[in-house]
Parts: sequence; C-alpha cells; structure tokens
Amino acid sequence: MKTVGIIGLGLIGGSMAIDLKRRGFASQVLGVEQVPLNAEAALKIGLVDEVVPYQECVERADIIVVAVPVGSAVGLVSDILDRFHAGEEASANASLRDPVRANAFAEASFPAWKEKIVIDVCSTKEQICLATHYHPCRRQFVSTHPMAGTEYSGPWAAMPGLFDGRACIFANTEESAPKAVKTIEELYDVLNMRPIYMNAANHDVHTAYVSHISHVTSFALALTVLDKEKDEKHIFDLASGGFSSTVRLAKSSADMWVPILTQNRDNVLHVMDTYIEKMNAFREAVANYDEDRIRALIEEANRIKKIIR
Amino acid sequence: MKTVGIIGLGLIGGSMAIDLKRRGFASQVLGVEQVPLNAEAALKIGLVDEVVPYQECVERADIIVVAVPVGSAVGLVSDILDRFHAGEEASANASLRDPVRANAFAEASFPAWKEKIVIDVCSTKEQICLATHYHPCRRQFVSTHPMAGTEYSGPWAAMPGLFDGRACIFANTEESAPKAVKTIEELYDVLNMRPIYMNAANHDVHTAYVSHISHVTSFALALTVLDKEKDEKHIFDLASGGFSSTVRLAKSSADMWVPILTQNRDNVLHVMDTYIEKMNAFREAVANYDEDRIRALIEEANRIKKIIR
Repeated sequence: MKTVGIIGLGLIGGSMAIDLKRRGFASQVLGVEQVPLNAEAALKIGLVDEVVPYQECVERADIIVVAVPVGSAVGLVSDILDRFHAGEEASANASLRDPVRANAFAEASFPAWKEKIVIDVCSTKEQICLATHYHPCRRQFVSTHPMAGTEYSGPWAAMPGLFDGRACIFANTEESAPKAVKTIEELYDVLNMRPIYMNAANHDVHTAYVSHISHVTSFALALTVLDKEKDEKHIFDLASGGFSSTVRLAKSSADMWVPILTQNRDNVLHVMDTYIEKMNAFREAVANYDEDRIRALIEEANRIKKIIR
Repeated sequence: MKTVGIIGLGLIGGSMAIDLKRRGFASQVLGVEQVPLNAEAALKIGLVDEVVPYQECVERADIIVVAVPVGSAVGLVSDILDRFHAGEEASANASLRDPVRANAFAEASFPAWKEKIVIDVCSTKEQICLATHYHPCRRQFVSTHPMAGTEYSGPWAAMPGLFDGRACIFANTEESAPKAVKTIEELYDVLNMRPIYMNAANHDVHTAYVSHISHVTSFALALTVLDKEKDEKHIFDLASGGFSSTVRLAKSSADMWVPILTQNRDNVLHVMDTYIEKMNAFREAVANYDEDRIRALIEEANRIKKIIR
C-alpha cells in the first residue's frame, strides 16, 4: 500500500482519491489544493486524509498525481522532478558522509527519493513530454490521460466509479522506468481502466479529433442559441433531450479548456477547419433544397452508430 | 374512452400507443404501418391492438394521430380531412333520405364523422398549418409537436414514459374547434406533457434555434471525425462520454430529418450562419493563441448552465 499525493482536488483528482483509497491501493491520500474553499470542501467531503503544503506532499508521498489544468501542469511536473533530483543528491551526499545514520533517517521518515513516481493526467501530452524529455529524473515520470470526466468541476464534482471501464492513455512509456510504469498500470487497474499505449504527439492528434472538437462545437452551439434566443424561457421550454446532450459540454470550465486549446492549437485548428467545411457542405445542400445531398450527408454521418453505441 | 388510430408506428407513434392504452385514455389502439416488417414487429411487441388499412383506421378511430415524417404528414393530414368532409356529406345526405336508418347505422358502426379529430406530431408546423388553413374541416385538426424523442427510430425504439414531463407545442389552436383542442389537451395531459401555445411560424423559428441546429452540428461532427479518423478503433478507444453525448444525435434517421431541414430551410439556414460565425470567431481566437478571447467565449457559452441543468 502506498501513500498517494494528489495535487489539485477537482473532478479528476478528487475522483481518483476516492477510489484509490476505497479500493485499497492507497493507505493514505494527501491532497494539495491552493484554493482554500476547495481544500476545505475536499476535507469536509472526505476526499483526502489530509490537506498538506505542496513541499510536504512531495516529501511524504510515494506517488504524486498532478491533476491541475494543463497550463500549470507542465511547470509543476518539472518542478517535482527537480525536487526528486535534489532529494536524491542530498541522500547520496548524506550517505557518503555517514551511511548508517543517513539510511536510518531515510527509513524512519520518508520514502526514498529514487522510488518516487510522479504522474500527470492531462488532456494534452506533447508539451509535457517535451518539457521533461531531458530531465535527469525523467524515468520517474509516467505521463497518462485517463479518458473520463463530466462537464462539472471542483471537489464537489468528484465521484466514485468515474473511471470504471474507460480507456487510459499512457504516453511515451519508453521514457519511463519499467518499474514505474508497472506501478502506474496497477494504479489504473484498480480504477478499472483499460491501458492504451501511444506516442504523445499521436495522442494529441487523436484527442483533437475525438474529444477537443466536441467541446468546441458545444461551446459554439451554446453561443449560437444564447445569441439567437434572447428569451431564455424559450430555450428552457423547447430544449428537448437532444439539445441538452449536444450542448452539455458547453458547461465545461474555461480554466481547463483555454490551455488545452492553446497547447493543442495546430491539431485543433486542423480539425476545426474540416468541421467548418462539413458544416458549409451541409449549409449548401439545405440552401439548394438538395434532398439527395442532405440524405447522403446524414447517412454518412449515421455510420457513427457502428462505432459508438 | 376513445378509439385512437395511429398512423406510423415508429418511436413517437409507438410510444404514444403504449401510454395512451396503459394509462386508460384509449380503449383501443389501431395502427397503420406501411412497412410490413414494422407492422409485424408492432403487433409482436404489443404496441397496438390491431394493424388495419389506412381507410379503416380513419373510419373507426375517434382520434387519428399522424406520426409519419413531416414530408408525408402534410399530404396525409389533408387527405384525412378530405375523408372527414366526404363522410360528413355522405351522412348528411343519408339522413336526409332516411333519417332513422342513417342514425341507427351511424350509432351501430362508426363514430360520427363530425366528432373525429386528427392531430399531427411533426417537428415543423408552418407548412402543415398553411396547407390545411382553408380546409372546410380545419377545425377538426389540432397541430401539435410533443418535444420528446431519442436518436432511435422504428417500433422497437418505442418506450413507455417517453413524453413524461416534457413540453408539447400546440400550434395555431385558434383554427381548431375548442372542443377538439380540449380533447387533445386531455390526451397530452395523460402523457404528462406541459402544453405550450404558439404560432406555427414562431414555432419553426424557435425549434430551428434550439432543436434543428443541434442535429446539424451533430451530423457535421460525425462527418468530421469519420473523415479524420480513418482508423475506427481510435474513435472507439478515445471517445469519452463527452464525445458520445455530443455526437448522439448524428444517429438520427435521414427519413425524419431530410424533410424537416427542407421544410424549415430559411430558419435553419439563418441559425447555421450564426453558428458558422461563432465557430469562425473561436477558430480565430485559437489561431492567434488569444487566451483572453477564448476564455471570454467559453465563459459566455457557460451561461447555458443557468438554463439547462
């Protein structure tokens, strides 16, 4: 059993905290949360055993999960790897000076720096992998993306079972120590996730296609309807289940999505361009009352049924 | 208790059949279905008591529900009103010739032609109201749009409780007989729907904004992803809940949506143009790494939270 430290007690961090503790992977879950309200809520809800300062979390935890928006995660993972490096050097020096006392101290207090692992759970993988590529402790970092979530955020959005049955991407595992990868595979296995191994750059291309574009189309749909329907009561009255599900992702937070869209800019632009083309094709068919063309487009779109149940 | 005839045993017609019978509004439900497989399935599933020919349904039913795609519904409602008219004239003539026998015959066999009501359940209302506006039996027609549905179709998609708690639009009720409107209000009350009264032209504007555009954006999303992701396994692996719910409507049938989009062409084009503008604004902000602008757009879109829970 491990001490797991989770930095960022939002939907993803909080939901991990619940299931890692409840399912016996973590003996103890430490949380780091810079928003005081969220920290207090996380304790009150019982997501974590303790909320501790960042530095203490890095010292005490065996596994550190960085679950903050992707803009901050890149710097944070690098900083944690720096601390691993400093810790490893300090212990090496201490054991050179007085091997017996140094070992006794290490065993009595904190897990060995060399055994610690840090993981991120970001929706973009290329920048974080590039930024850490040459770090001397790169092998202690495992870059992952659990493909699960809801449109809600904050510790109150955390829920048990969020990850069950979903896919978890492992990016560039060849740069991580095999033992570290194995430990993190066990962690996600406890969360009931299917591992998928992928190059970081490929990950960003595919998630732009399948996940990021869905958010952009939802945001644009909400903007359109809010713009056109000045009378909000009409939206409420006329929104059937179809509209609600299509616009659901438009509730997603700017804190999370601004950095995803800028970090993955090129791929997102590429897929947005294709999307705008398809929309224009549809527009033209409707404008021309071209029933055959509309039917062909809809029937082509219907192929998604075979893939998504 | 009424004999209800339902023409078109798909998702909407079939689901109405289930609840109108189960909740005691209909003593008997007759179905008309031109696809032999669907007719057989509807009987097997037990959606209706009998599947009968179209003409027999019009003769025997007190209330006729036209639940076919909007392209066919316009002609069908007019034809049913023609039959009401012919029936009324024939009974009037018969009772002139031999009042006693004619009345006895009418009482013994079919409900009086003058008491019959036809309703449609179409997603567009302007054309059907225009087409029937001058019909001598217009008052026996009540034009409605129950705002409920799923992305599935056919008798096997029918389900109990589909309409519970949703809104039902009544269009141009001033053209219908008050008694007919009252009967149809009772019918939808049994289905637990909230009535909303609206002018047909307004209905088509608002549903373009809130419902039709959601379908178009979903179709375009499916087309984009299918085009970009040649490897379908990636779509399956990477589709988190967000993508599935945004693309859900892209499973909707061409039979239903081709006529909706062409009948409501002007409104749909208008809202598509606004949508394409919003998408381009988003594209520009991402292209320029303009984080403030992206944030402003997302936060504006987030306002949908206040309206749709």
